[in-house]
Amino acid sequence: MNVFVIGIGLIGGSFAKDIRRLRPDTIFYGIDSNETHLDEALKLGLVDIKSDYNDLHLADMVVVSIPVDVMVEELPKILDAVNDDCVVFDGGSTKSLICQMVEDHPKRRNFLAAHPIAGTEFSGPSAAIENLYAGKTNIICEVEKTAFKLQERALELFQEMGMRIRYMNPQAHDKHIAYVSHLSHISSFMLGKTVIEKEKNERDIFDMAGSGFESTVRLAKSSPAMWTPIFKHNKENVVETLEEYIQNLQEFMQLLKNDDYKGIYKEMNDTNKIKEILNGIPLNNSKTVTKK
Amino acid sequence: MNVFVIGIGLIGGSFAKDIRRLRPDTIFYGIDSNETHLDEALKLGLVDIKSDYNDLHLADMVVVSIPVDVMVEELPKILDAVNDDCVVFDGGSTKSLICQMVEDHPKRRNFLAAHPIAGTEFSGPSAAIENLYAGKTNIICEVEKTAFKLQERALELFQEMGMRIRYMNPQAHDKHIAYVSHLSHISSFMLGKTVIEKEKNERDIFDMAGSGFESTVRLAKSSPAMWTPIFKHNKENVVETLEEYIQNLQEFMQLLKNDDYKGIYKEMNDTNKIKEILNGIPLNNSKTVTKK
Repeated sequence: MNVFVIGIGLIGGSFAKDIRRLRPDTIFYGIDSNETHLDEALKLGLVDIKSDYNDLHLADMVVVSIPVDVMVEELPKILDAVNDDCVVFDGGSTKSLICQMVEDHPKRRNFLAAHPIAGTEFSGPSAAIENLYAGKTNIICEVEKTAFKLQERALELFQEMGMRIRYMNPQAHDKHIAYVSHLSHISSFMLGKTVIEKEKNERDIFDMAGSGFESTVRLAKSSPAMWTPIFKHNKENVVETLEEYIQNLQEFMQLLKNDDYKGIYKEMNDTNKIKEILNGIPLNNSKTVTKK
Repeated sequence: MNVFVIGIGLIGGSFAKDIRRLRPDTIFYGIDSNETHLDEALKLGLVDIKSDYNDLHLADMVVVSIPVDVMVEELPKILDAVNDDCVVFDGGSTKSLICQMVEDHPKRRNFLAAHPIAGTEFSGPSAAIENLYAGKTNIICEVEKTAFKLQERALELFQEMGMRIRYMNPQAHDKHIAYVSHLSHISSFMLGKTVIEKEKNERDIFDMAGSGFESTVRLAKSSPAMWTPIFKHNKENVVETLEEYIQNLQEFMQLLKNDDYKGIYKEMNDTNKIKEILNGIPLNNSKTVTKK
């Protein structure tokens, strides 16, 4: 099988590692606008051949893992270039605009819209991890718009990689992912900003920070080049989550200003039920854990 | 040596485990208002004898690890009951009010104000971990007010436990800890609340949550009984950090509303420097990690 990976970083590179294990006869072609990343991916053995869109007609499968703003530009061109028996899937963190951009494309049936909920705060080819996707959820949107046998080729692979498949429409995906992923990133970035601003002249102060602080600001290490277009694509939903989050913080601050400690206790006690919810979330893949 | 642990949960229990390893001849006396916890601690071997304040005169060392509101009530009584050659240290997350409450106590020289920056989101005797404190920072306040040989008894032990000792005045401690610990807890609790409120009728949605969400809401599992009095003690500093955090979130939301993606990119890029800062923080002790 010929697999093309377009955007050979954490997501694309981790797909390459798993596919190579599961389909050892595969030849991997890498395409990336960043020549240094491409050379690194070749050196790391993630891909076998540096390639470009002129070779895309050779592909049986194309993994597109590029920032979502580039995705909406490139996906139609990629579909133009592939043959009729090729499945193209993406890993974008937003789905509405991507699905909309290829809605009327003559090769829409070759595309499977996917969002594997997996990753770390690191990026680039060296961040690729084998088994990143094992036990993780993969959200598939508009599956009915993909040709049967091409659905099958991708989904069988996802299942062999140990992913849990969930089907959802693109609008519902974007609405809910704003709460369980996009908002976490903003809360983390702004927490990091608040502390850095305050403590910029007192680096020693970070000696006082423990694992709790590290955990809440971990996502503030994430790539701005990846996340800016995600927030742009999902602006409406993200603004809504932010308004609700800010409202909740203001209410908490008001309780504190009013010395309403029963109210503060209740807020925290009610939120403790997150324990049971988190028990359902697949194991963490942050750096601290993958080191073990 | 006779060591009394008052409040035998995560913090006190972890001290007991390390002290038992380092000073094998020690007899451990447990005092706790929660009889179930005390029985559990005895069963787990954290303490050898269930005790009360009437025996405190036997103590060579007292570890006080109780919520900070109870601490300010109990600490003067504990000091009343100990002998002149006993060192009493606490593990409270705020320091100003605690130091103030014992300022004029006749046995002030027997007290060492400490805040070991260590813990997990779990609580109770079963949450106690050996080596919880290795590599962690222990902030000591007003060390000059403790008798030399009693300072030495406690500090030698902290060093043998692998802790990094830092000296600070109580006001500076409370100001900075609001940024690097207390704010993280509120941001996490309110993030959890926002998502639970929105998704209360759609539990399946948490299938979409990944390790990033888990990381940012981990602290929302923390104990309200412990954290409510911390926020009360440190109200002024916590309100200040919250105001700045809310302001930063509002500015981010405004950039998004204005479609100012260059501004959003810059915000995130500037905050990425948290990477270098986090590199200085001792290794995580969250449950996911200690499981390895």
